[in-house]
Amino acid sequence: MQGTVGELGEFGLIKELTARLPLTPAVVLGPGDDAAVVRTPDGRVVATTDVLIEGRHFRRDWSTAYDVGRKSAAQNLADIAAMGAVPTAILLGLVAPADLPTTWATELMDGLRDECQVAGATVVGGDVVRGDTITLAITALGDLQGREAVTRAGAQVGDVVAVTGWLGWSAAGLTVLQRGFRSPRAFVEAHRRPEPPYHAGPAAAELGATAMIDVSDGLVADLGHVAKASGVDIDLRAADFDIPAQMSDIGQAVGVDPLVWVLSGGEDHAIVATFPAAVQLPARWRVVGEVVRRTNSPRGVGAPTVGGVGRVTVDGAPWDRIGGWDHFAE
Amino acid sequence: MQGTVGELGEFGLIKELTARLPLTPAVVLGPGDDAAVVRTPDGRVVATTDVLIEGRHFRRDWSTAYDVGRKSAAQNLADIAAMGAVPTAILLGLVAPADLPTTWATELMDGLRDECQVAGATVVGGDVVRGDTITLAITALGDLQGREAVTRAGAQVGDVVAVTGWLGWSAAGLTVLQRGFRSPRAFVEAHRRPEPPYHAGPAAAELGATAMIDVSDGLVADLGHVAKASGVDIDLRAADFDIPAQMSDIGQAVGVDPLVWVLSGGEDHAIVATFPAAVQLPARWRVVGEVVRRTNSPRGVGAPTVGGVGRVTVDGAPWDRIGGWDHFAE
Repeated sequence: MQGTVGELGEFGLIKELTARLPLTPAVVLGPGDDAAVVRTPDGRVVATTDVLIEGRHFRRDWSTAYDVGRKSAAQNLADIAAMGAVPTAILLGLVAPADLPTTWATELMDGLRDECQVAGATVVGGDVVRGDTITLAITALGDLQGREAVTRAGAQVGDVVAVTGWLGWSAAGLTVLQRGFRSPRAFVEAHRRPEPPYHAGPAAAELGATAMIDVSDGLVADLGHVAKASGVDIDLRAADFDIPAQMSDIGQAVGVDPLVWVLSGGEDHAIVATFPAAVQLPARWRVVGEVVRRTNSPRGVGAPTVGGVGRVTVDGAPWDRIGGWDHFAE
Repeated sequence: MQGTVGELGEFGLIKELTARLPLTPAVVLGPGDDAAVVRTPDGRVVATTDVLIEGRHFRRDWSTAYDVGRKSAAQNLADIAAMGAVPTAILLGLVAPADLPTTWATELMDGLRDECQVAGATVVGGDVVRGDTITLAITALGDLQGREAVTRAGAQVGDVVAVTGWLGWSAAGLTVLQRGFRSPRAFVEAHRRPEPPYHAGPAAAELGATAMIDVSDGLVADLGHVAKASGVDIDLRAADFDIPAQMSDIGQAVGVDPLVWVLSGGEDHAIVATFPAAVQLPARWRVVGEVVRRTNSPRGVGAPTVGGVGRVTVDGAPWDRIGGWDHFAE
C-alpha cells in the first residue's frame, strides 16, 4: 500500500477502502457503481446524515483513525435506532488531504465497518475527494421492520421518561483529556468510542414508546427537543440518576459536579424515550423523570422544534449548567 | 433573517432551511427528527453520496449559491437516474463558515429544492456544522419501481453505445470562464447548472439497457468504468457525435478541439448506456459506438473497476487527450 492517499489516487484509495467491506443480506448492490441498492423490506427507509470535521468533532492526537471510524458510525447508527429502526447501511463521504497516510483512511474504514457490524449494518458506498481538512459525511439507513417511527413529537402528560445506555461518560472522558490526562481509561475510552444501545431503539418502539431521541448534545438539551416537539414540559429527578463512584471521584479531582456530565454531556449516544406509565420497562431502562404538563399543541411530527414551547426542568427548577451544543457557537 | 449563519446559530439556520422545503408523497417524515423516513415501494432503496468543496468543485465568484445548489443536487440525482431509478429524496450535510451570509445558505437550499423538484424528489434531512471551507455532502435516494438496477457490469459484445443529454457543454463553459469571459452564455450557464436527462435513466432500463453510467468525469473516462466492470472493449466513432456550430466556434476562438470537450469533459451529467443492437431507441438517444470485444469475465456487479481489463477507443485508437478526473491529482 502506498504511503499517502495522494500517491494512491482516488480510484486506488476507493479500491483499498471497499476491499475491506463485507456485504450483508440487506445489500443488493454494494460499492463500485453509480449508487448502491439496499433492501427495505417494509417499503420505507429511515435516513440520517451527520458531518464530522477534524479539530471540531475529533482530534487525531486524541483518537486513532479506527476510533474516529467507530465513533462517527455510532453517532449516525444511533440516530437510526432512536427512530425505532434497525440500522442497515451507511455511506461515507470522505474529504482527505493528499498527504493523509493511507493507513489512516483504511483504519478509519475498519472502524466504520466494525461499528456497523455491532449494529447489524455495513458500508455500501461513498465518495472520496481531496480537501484541506479531514471531513466525514456519514449517511445511515435503517429498517423500521413494519413499526411506526417513534418521533420526538408524541410525549404525553403522565408518561415516564426513561434512559438506557451510558450518560456522562464521554463528557467526563473529554474533561480528563482536556486536562492533559489519559486516564481513568474507562472514561477516556468512552469518549473515544461510544457504545450506543442500538437494540434498545427498536425494543422501545415495540414497548410503546411515545417519543424517543438519541442523546448526542446532552440529556437536558435533547429532551428539550422532545418537549418542544411534543408541546409538553418534562421534569427530571436528579436523585434517580445513578452516578458511578468513579465518576464522582473524577468530578472531585477536577472540580466538576458529575451531574453536569450526566445531564449536559453529549456523545455517549444513550437513548431516552417517553413511555406510558403502565409500561413494564426491561431492567436496563432507568426511569429518571416524568412528562408533567401540556404547554401547547404538539408542533407536529417533523416540525422544526425551534420556537416551540416546552421546557425541561430538574427537580422542578431550570437547568442551565452548560446546556446543549450549538455548532455555530464558539 | 440575521446576516450570517454564525449570528443565526445552528438551530435558527436549520429552521430557515427546512421552512423552504415542500414535502412529496414519498416523504413519510421530513426534516426535524433524528432521521427522515422515505417511502420505498418496491422494497429496495438506491443510495449515493457525493462531496463538493468550495474552490475545488465550485467557486462563489463563478456560481451563485442557487446554482451551486442546483448543480450539486443534479450530480447526485443523475447517479440515481443512471441506475434506472427515479430520485425520491436527498439529504444535505453542510459545512459553513460562521461568517457565511445566511442568504447564501438559503439560496443554496432553494437551488437544491428546485433541482429536486425537476427530478421529482425533495430534501428530507441533513446536518449543518461549522468549518473553514464550504463543503456540501449530498446523499440521494431513489426508487427502482420494481426494475432491476442497471449497473456498469452488463455490457455485451455487439451492444450499441448510446448517449442522451448534453456532452461537452459544461467543459466548454468552464474554459470560457477560465479565460476570464462570461459568454457565450449558453455554455457558461451549462457549466453553472447542468440539466441531466433524469427521465432517460428509468426509460433506458425499461428499454433493456445492459449497462449504464452517468457522465460526470468525461465520456471516455466513465465508459472506461463500464468497459472494465463488464470486461469488454468499447469503440466510439468520432463522426457520430453532433458538435454544435457554436461549440466549434468557441473551440476555434480558444484553440481547443471541441471533440475534447465532448469526449473528455465531465459535469454535464449526460447518461450513456449500452443496448442490444436490436433495441429501437427514442429520438433523443444518439448511437455513438459499439461494444467490440470481450476482454475477460465481467468483474461482477459492484466489483471495483480498478485493475479491470477493458478499454475505450475512438475510431479504433486510444484516446488520451485530457482523460477523466482523479480527485487526488492536481
